[in-house]
Formats: sequence, C-alpha cells, structure tokens
Amino acid sequence: MNIALLGFGVVGRGVYDILANMDHIQVKKVICLEDIALPDAQVCHDIRDILDDPAIDTVVEAMGGLHPAYEFVRACMEAGKNVVTSNKALVCTFYDQLIPLASEKGILFRCTAAVGGGIGWLSELERSRRGQRLTQVGGIMNGTCNYILYAMTQLGLGYEEALKQAQSLGYAEAKPATDVEGIDTWHKVILSSNIAFGVSMDPASVPVAGISRICAGDVAAFTARGYTCKLISTAACRDGAYTAYVQPTLVPAGQPEAAVPSNYNLVSFQGEYSGRMSFFGQGAGRYPTAYNVVQDLLDLTAGKGFYSPYGPKVEAVNQNKMRYYVRGARDGWLQSHAAENWGDAVVTEPVAVDEMHRWLKDQDGAFIAAIAEDLL
Amino acid sequence: MNIALLGFGVVGRGVYDILANMDHIQVKKVICLEDIALPDAQVCHDIRDILDDPAIDTVVEAMGGLHPAYEFVRACMEAGKNVVTSNKALVCTFYDQLIPLASEKGILFRCTAAVGGGIGWLSELERSRRGQRLTQVGGIMNGTCNYILYAMTQLGLGYEEALKQAQSLGYAEAKPATDVEGIDTWHKVILSSNIAFGVSMDPASVPVAGISRICAGDVAAFTARGYTCKLISTAACRDGAYTAYVQPTLVPAGQPEAAVPSNYNLVSFQGEYSGRMSFFGQGAGRYPTAYNVVQDLLDLTAGKGFYSPYGPKVEAVNQNKMRYYVRGARDGWLQSHAAENWGDAVVTEPVAVDEMHRWLKDQDGAFIAAIAEDLL
Repeated sequence: MNIALLGFGVVGRGVYDILANMDHIQVKKVICLEDIALPDAQVCHDIRDILDDPAIDTVVEAMGGLHPAYEFVRACMEAGKNVVTSNKALVCTFYDQLIPLASEKGILFRCTAAVGGGIGWLSELERSRRGQRLTQVGGIMNGTCNYILYAMTQLGLGYEEALKQAQSLGYAEAKPATDVEGIDTWHKVILSSNIAFGVSMDPASVPVAGISRICAGDVAAFTARGYTCKLISTAACRDGAYTAYVQPTLVPAGQPEAAVPSNYNLVSFQGEYSGRMSFFGQGAGRYPTAYNVVQDLLDLTAGKGFYSPYGPKVEAVNQNKMRYYVRGARDGWLQSHAAENWGDAVVTEPVAVDEMHRWLKDQDGAFIAAIAEDLL
Repeated sequence: MNIALLGFGVVGRGVYDILANMDHIQVKKVICLEDIALPDAQVCHDIRDILDDPAIDTVVEAMGGLHPAYEFVRACMEAGKNVVTSNKALVCTFYDQLIPLASEKGILFRCTAAVGGGIGWLSELERSRRGQRLTQVGGIMNGTCNYILYAMTQLGLGYEEALKQAQSLGYAEAKPATDVEGIDTWHKVILSSNIAFGVSMDPASVPVAGISRICAGDVAAFTARGYTCKLISTAACRDGAYTAYVQPTLVPAGQPEAAVPSNYNLVSFQGEYSGRMSFFGQGAGRYPTAYNVVQDLLDLTAGKGFYSPYGPKVEAVNQNKMRYYVRGARDGWLQSHAAENWGDAVVTEPVAVDEMHRWLKDQDGAFIAAIAEDLL
C-alpha cells in the first residue's frame, strides 16, 4: 500500500511515525502548506501531484477543517483512491456526498479516528451491528469538555480557570468554541447514529447545548446533591423513530460516566443481544488518534470499506421528557414548568427535550443540565 | 456455513436463538445429553454423528467443563472442522495442545466469548496488537465477584448474604468456588496474556487470591479510607519480562474500576500508541455471551482464525512491590513487613507480589488485598 498524507500536523505526524515501523505501508507523498523536515522526494505542495500519481492508492486526510479538505478528498475519490480521515466535521457535514460517492467509485472509505480518538468506536459499531440491532449510542465524546468539568468538580476551579488549565495542558484549543459549545460532540453523535442505525440523520434536527455557561456555583450545587455534570450525547432508534441530542447532563455518583477522569472519553452502545457495552480511552492526542488511522489502513488492506450501508434521511424527534436544572433565566414558560429550586436555579418538572432546547435558544446566558437518573 | 452445537444450556440455547434470524448460518445438529425440544432431525447424542457429517464445517462448543469438551473439540479439529468455544477453562488448560493443532490442521479456532462475555475483548486484543505492542492487560473479569463486592460495599451486606443474593439473581452458581476463589479470572488473564503478548504463559507461575474470606469489617475499613475492593487481574510485558497475578485490590474512588456496578466487567489494555483502552459490559449472561459466539462465527466466514500466533512458553515473575491489607494472620514475616494498622488488620510496607502470595498459601483464613494507588 502506498499512501499520501494530506496534512502534517498532530495527527499526520503521528501517522507518519507509526508507519515508519511498518514495511507494507509506504508514505509516498506528504502535502503540507508549511515547510516540513522530510526528504524532498516525499514533500509536495499541490494536490495534483497526488491525484496524478498512479502508485498512490490511498490518501490519509489529516488537515482538519471543511475546506479545502472536502475538495481534496472528493478529488482523490474521483481519482479512484481509497480515503482514510479523522475529520469528523468533514464526514458529518458531507455525509450525503462522500458515502454515496465512495460506493459509486468503488473505493474504500474509513474514518475511525473521527470519533473517540484512540477508541476504535466506529469499528466497534461496525462489528456489533453485524449480529444484532443497535438501539442506542452516546456518551462522553469530547475530552476538552470532560477535562474542564472534571477540573471544576475535582479541583474546585471556575470555568475560565479550568479552560485555561485545559489549554495549558494541550487539551483545549486557543479558540475552544467548537468543543465547549458541543459542536464537536454533535458531529460525533450524528456520525455514530448514521453508522449504528444505517441512516443519514438531519443535523438540523439534533439540538445541542454546551458547557460554556457553567459556573462554580452550579458545580457545587450538583456535588452537594450527589451528581456529576458531564457533556453527554444520546441517540436512539426505537420502533423506527429516532432521538438525538447533546446536552450537559447530571449523572448520579456510581454511574460509570461520573467516574470518567481528565480528558478521557466513555462511549456506549446498547444492542438487543449484547446489552450495554462501553468503551473508555483517550479521546484525542497524537498517537491514540494516529493509531486508529493506521488501524483503518490495515482494515483497508483487508478490503474493509465503510462501516454500514448508506441509509435513508431521517430526523430526530425528541419528545422524551427529562427534568432540567436551569440557571440564569426566569420567564413565564420556565415558571410554569418549575418543580423545585436549587439555590438560584430552577429544577423543572419533566419537559420534552426538543421543547427545552427550543426555549433555550432565546435565553442569553442561561445554563441548562438534564438530570439523568440512570444511564445503564 | 453449517454448524453443530455441542451443548444446549445457557449459551448454546442463546446461540440457537440468535442464529434463527440469520439465513447464512444453519444449525444442522445439536448434541445434548438431556432431552431437548428441537426437531428430531437436529438432535443427536453421539459426537460421531457430527464428526462423520461432511456438511458440518464448524462446531460450537458450549458444554463447559474440561471433559469430554476437550476430547470432542480435538476430534472435531482432527476431522477438519472449525471450532468456536466460550470455554475459558478448556482453552486456558489445553492452550499448548489446541492452538498448535488448529494451525496444523488448517482450521479456524476462536473463543471470544471466553473472556468478558458480551465484551468482544479477545477480538479487541487481536485488532489492537496489529499496529502496536501491548504492554498490559487486566481488570475486572468476573461478574460474580464484582456483584458480591458491590453488594457488600453498596448495601452493607456480609459475604454470605451477598453470595446468596448473587445466587438468587443468577449471578453466582450453587458451587461458587471457581468464581470466588479467582480461578475463572485466572483462566481469563492467562488467556488474555497469551493473545496480547503472543506467548504461552505457564499457569503455575500466575498466583491467585480470591474474595471468599472478605468480611463486612474489611469493606467498612476500605470505605472509610476512600477505597473500593475489586477482584483485579493484571498481566504485563515489559522488556521481555512478564508479570501476571489475580488478587483483591483496593482501588481509590474516582478510578473507573471503583465505579463498576453489579455484575459488570471492566477490562483494559495498555498499548504503546493507543494508551489505555477499557471495555465495560455484561461479562456473562445468555445473550451477551451467545452474541460473541455468533460474532466469532461471522469472523470465521471472513476467514479469521486465532487472534495471534502461538508463542513461546514463558513464566510470570512478580517482583514488583505493592502494599497489602492483611487480616486474619499474625506471624513473624507479617510483623517484619507491617507498616501500619487498620483496626485489627495490618497494612504492609511494599512487598513483592510473589512473596506475598507464597506467604499466603500457608495462612488459613487470612484475607489480603493489594492497595493500588492509580490504575490508569
């Protein structure tokens, strides 16, 4: 197998290092916009050098972002090259373009490192759905948010301090919005749903609330009541109807999610025969992520392409009801659903998830967290 | 694929049920010593009916026990039939016979359900060792022990009460010694080591201590100090040297192991690139276990045989030191290693694992638990 690397950042460099020990996968070309210390023969700056090289059978996209990643990946597929990517935003956003195109062109496409970093989560879904129907997927899918919430809970830090600490440890980016607003988790749960349930879920139907408005007082109120706040994604398929959402969630002590430390991830599925299965590991980082890119390359050599058939377009409809902790807002709707007070905050009676998220859109500064009694 | 089922108990019946929905895997014969309500054409009582049937290409052993399971499996392999089994005692005890025989006969052999029940643990090891070296495996591998320890910790039950409750829930057998003395976990960690490290580990070199001597007072002492007691297996390969042991272990609150509820398992590996990866799920039960037998059958149809090459014989040498909680014994050796007292019990200074287990062999009634500061 002769591959080209698109991008030579954290993940691309990691893939390059791991492949240095593997004889049967050669890195033939590396495209990078900046100067890099690699042999001249390997470095190129124009995607056409890769497209026009018939010896390159497979491309690893590790650039990140939507553009030009999408145009490059598309062009490689059109040129008959297999593609491996770790870019969840790319695969989620262009799912309806990329997955059918892979079939049409007869190329192999995998993206295991896109969800769960070092956890082979999408490969787990591929394996587990062979012998049973999957009914639920979700969990803690973003290490940045988990670190911030963990630091606030365990070390008593405020949100800004915890974010700064995450940044200094390399767990958060300088511009953290994609992570802390839940967008990264949202991409991941949509992609997980598509593969687990064999559908193409409309992203616009999946509500998301992030953690950027949480404060130390919220965390103290949760701890006093035996809860740990985590950013949790949930998607389910029952009787042909779909639910999917991302929101801060209060998990009772003793649940596995409550014990997930630092920047780790914990993702789970429910299957009709397997019951609940959960996977815990490094959700990001150079080598864990690169390791799963390399696993995809090995699966490609065994002829394995995408994880599940491209399925019909579906929408999430979240009529299931949960109790919510709400701080930073007061209006008639909230008052009419209030069941108790936790200090300054309101805890609602059970409210439909979609209704809560629709209301939240108009509330500047409000923080919400769903209360989960039992995630098992 | 045409299969024969050896045994029609909990697992065999589960496999039969799941396969009822799969067109491409047919159950041609079922051998069972008792009368079973199946079509006459399927039922047989003599292994020769299976051995002599050329249409049967694959045998699922779900009888349990060593004999006649070993003789039946061997005969099937000699007859050129692929084998799937969930029998950890069988594979662990006859590893040096079965794995080379599978190669010699060119048949496919898998046993994913033998470790972790519904967790595809051995398949995880197979996948993860493709691109990296594995340095450590282990965790909570026995649901019976986890349930008993969980019930003692969460509900304040004594050992006998917790065992009875486990039995009434179907989580413990009437004769629980194999589980509570750690033998089941011992089989599982040896088999995991063999696959993870590509060796054949001498079982006699792997010390094991179980949970049958724990009492409510021990658990209260652990809880008061922020520890949770779990039966933990550990095996490691570093610089060509091996360690492996099974023992009750005090896990600090906040570690994922501490939060494993009820009869669940949590098994982990460390890989040079992936870091720590953990897998949480139902370690036993009809459908979770049968589901992984079916996964093995699907892997067989894809040509996948045993997980790793049969490797050299190695011995575990456990010179690494840990602090131990010891209750129910007092002698010169223990006094000379005592560092502090927890009520009636002694906590030792760090002692080599092998030395502690050698000492324990002569101590009737003593309970030990290693103290782990950090399992991550």
